[in-house]
Amino acid sequence: MTDLIRSWVESANAPDTDFPLNNLPYGVFSTNGSDPRCGVAIGDQILDLARMEADGLLTCDGALQTGRWNAFMAQGKAAWAALRANLTDMLAEGSGREAALRGYLVAQSDAVLHMPFDVTEYTDFYAGRHHAFNVGTMFRGPENALPPNWLHIPIGYNGRASSVVVSGTPVTRPNGQLKGPNDDAPRFGPSQRFDIELEMGAIVGQPSNGPISVAEAFDNIFGYVLLNDWSARDIQAWEYQPLGPFQAKATATTISPWIVTAAALEPFRTSTPEREKTLLPYLAEPAPMLYDIALEVGLTPKGGSETILSRTNYREMYYSAAQQLAHHTSSGCPMRVGDLLGSGTISGPTKDSRGSLLELSWGGKEPLTLDTGETRSFIEDHDTLALRGAALGEGYRIGFGPCTGELLPARKLEG
Amino acid sequence: MTDLIRSWVESANAPDTDFPLNNLPYGVFSTNGSDPRCGVAIGDQILDLARMEADGLLTCDGALQTGRWNAFMAQGKAAWAALRANLTDMLAEGSGREAALRGYLVAQSDAVLHMPFDVTEYTDFYAGRHHAFNVGTMFRGPENALPPNWLHIPIGYNGRASSVVVSGTPVTRPNGQLKGPNDDAPRFGPSQRFDIELEMGAIVGQPSNGPISVAEAFDNIFGYVLLNDWSARDIQAWEYQPLGPFQAKATATTISPWIVTAAALEPFRTSTPEREKTLLPYLAEPAPMLYDIALEVGLTPKGGSETILSRTNYREMYYSAAQQLAHHTSSGCPMRVGDLLGSGTISGPTKDSRGSLLELSWGGKEPLTLDTGETRSFIEDHDTLALRGAALGEGYRIGFGPCTGELLPARKLEG
Repeated sequence: MTDLIRSWVESANAPDTDFPLNNLPYGVFSTNGSDPRCGVAIGDQILDLARMEADGLLTCDGALQTGRWNAFMAQGKAAWAALRANLTDMLAEGSGREAALRGYLVAQSDAVLHMPFDVTEYTDFYAGRHHAFNVGTMFRGPENALPPNWLHIPIGYNGRASSVVVSGTPVTRPNGQLKGPNDDAPRFGPSQRFDIELEMGAIVGQPSNGPISVAEAFDNIFGYVLLNDWSARDIQAWEYQPLGPFQAKATATTISPWIVTAAALEPFRTSTPEREKTLLPYLAEPAPMLYDIALEVGLTPKGGSETILSRTNYREMYYSAAQQLAHHTSSGCPMRVGDLLGSGTISGPTKDSRGSLLELSWGGKEPLTLDTGETRSFIEDHDTLALRGAALGEGYRIGFGPCTGELLPARKLEG
Repeated sequence: MTDLIRSWVESANAPDTDFPLNNLPYGVFSTNGSDPRCGVAIGDQILDLARMEADGLLTCDGALQTGRWNAFMAQGKAAWAALRANLTDMLAEGSGREAALRGYLVAQSDAVLHMPFDVTEYTDFYAGRHHAFNVGTMFRGPENALPPNWLHIPIGYNGRASSVVVSGTPVTRPNGQLKGPNDDAPRFGPSQRFDIELEMGAIVGQPSNGPISVAEAFDNIFGYVLLNDWSARDIQAWEYQPLGPFQAKATATTISPWIVTAAALEPFRTSTPEREKTLLPYLAEPAPMLYDIALEVGLTPKGGSETILSRTNYREMYYSAAQQLAHHTSSGCPMRVGDLLGSGTISGPTKDSRGSLLELSWGGKEPLTLDTGETRSFIEDHDTLALRGAALGEGYRIGFGPCTGELLPARKLEG
């Protein structure tokens, strides 16, 4: 475990900041309606990398002028390492660059954050064992909870990239086909069981055009975000057989605004769990490729205070993002820069570490009581949901910034 | 039904050409290693629209200089209609433009065809009733063949846009996890049940950012291609529960190279079938939105002659592309220019009209005999599969050009 690297940006040395110099997460911001610009978070500030590149203080072949991180990711690992080393040097306490760079700092409180990269395609996995067991138990009973393939395959399905939005974007409750088990026919109306899924998102930073190993997959992942895979459980229950979730998952997926790089998370690598079934060789991890990242979910009713619904950790996953990406390519599927892989819901072993309301309220049978005294089985209109996460070092944290969204009421139907 | 519109390009007046003046399908081509250029097929020629625009003979705001049709599609219906009317005038017999345009014609035999558009996202449906019934019967018996939701929802799932390739691209047999019902554990190896799916692809030409009606969806579809959704049945059988197909469908999806516009298909509109279950209002078709398009599949073993495996028609679909697109947006899912929607496998009611080898060989139990005397249950290495299709008018046809691919042997595994 490394120590805090002190910066001349004083707020970056506070033990509770998400963004010490050890982190250096990449985002896209604007101020006063400007064009979106590439920047890096440091303490409570953003260093305006786009303007630095334009002024000749950084050289990234114009990648930082694009208002997205895709072009920089495409430059590859040497470029990733060089920029990180350069920024670490420039921002370190005693670097002597303070006078030159002070004018490139923008207060985060003055900035609007945008999507940090264009999502090329989005894949969502189902790779948390406690989540799969909980959901399987509700739907099929505990004996058949885990599907037979689950211990062998990081089960995944393709999601909808066009629906991925940045933290802070409101989400409109979807309408869809609903049919309860005792209804004669489906009806079309607002989802009554709208839910979150607490996940991590891994961002593919290098392309591949055929099967790659787990080690190659690990190297191709640029960084991570928090990811809330909003889910309409009632739409899903009626639509998902036989080809999987579709409109239940297409309303929105929210990501946190800062890409925390794999480099920043390096000190926090940890192993996937011991396995009762040995994985096929193409999925074996040559080294620890999961990360120890503390996670929590909070719910804030309109005008109320926040209740923390769950606390869990990314290390609960059964498969790492590197294993998921290697599996994703096993058929020859090409991967591209900007592909986003959702980890699957990250539930821990205890009730207070479950990563969805479906599990927390056990399908609505055990409503949660909020700190305000209200109860919740699923999300109510104008609830704001927030995911937070950080890898916890000695005297510092590698944080992600919040991943939030308010649920707006469903669109009115005609007629 | 309209008549043949005669052109001064003589080959466009032949009754067996796929590309009479009535068609005017858009593609992307190169000659002698040139950059890919936008063009339109006419008889056995391609009119080089990129060079015409560069020379000032057409005005499309530079969209034809991009080597893809996405930018032109984004210009919208008025631009679509204007270019079609302009090309129809210029290429018509007696237009007086022959001398000026003759130099912009390129023989198709001298051209290489490329992807006609960038596939933004790819969605595959399961909306052919005979196919769903056949597959359901094999997997679950005839009583449970159609899932309960099937008559109410155009069932779809998200596919992998990065795997879509243009006709003529070889396809490598995938490796994947395989586990037979009597195997103790899965193994990793080449798919033994690699298959085709005969489909039509609808191309979204206008964006939407929320639910749209079936009528709006119809208006947003720019055109159609033939689509072969290559499928590894054995990989699918082991992976697809509970979240649907993933690596079984990610090796490749091949499309025909010419975008046949909805405008060209207008005379061939036909209704989806009578329904035993009334659709919910959001899926009701205000007018016929399916098309009468004759389709066939041929298989050519290496060095052998082609056997036609199946003849069917797009009018067999239970849901039109407009219904599928409207459903796709029902949750609020944003759609973008270049989204590709696969119809689902188009099987007819008879054995010789089935759209997949899975159905034609009834899961391998009834191997097909080719004209060469060989038999096939699934695709063998170096077989070339070809889809063809055309809407048949009086004395002319609106053809798609072939959609072909040769299956190459699987990659060797290490160790």
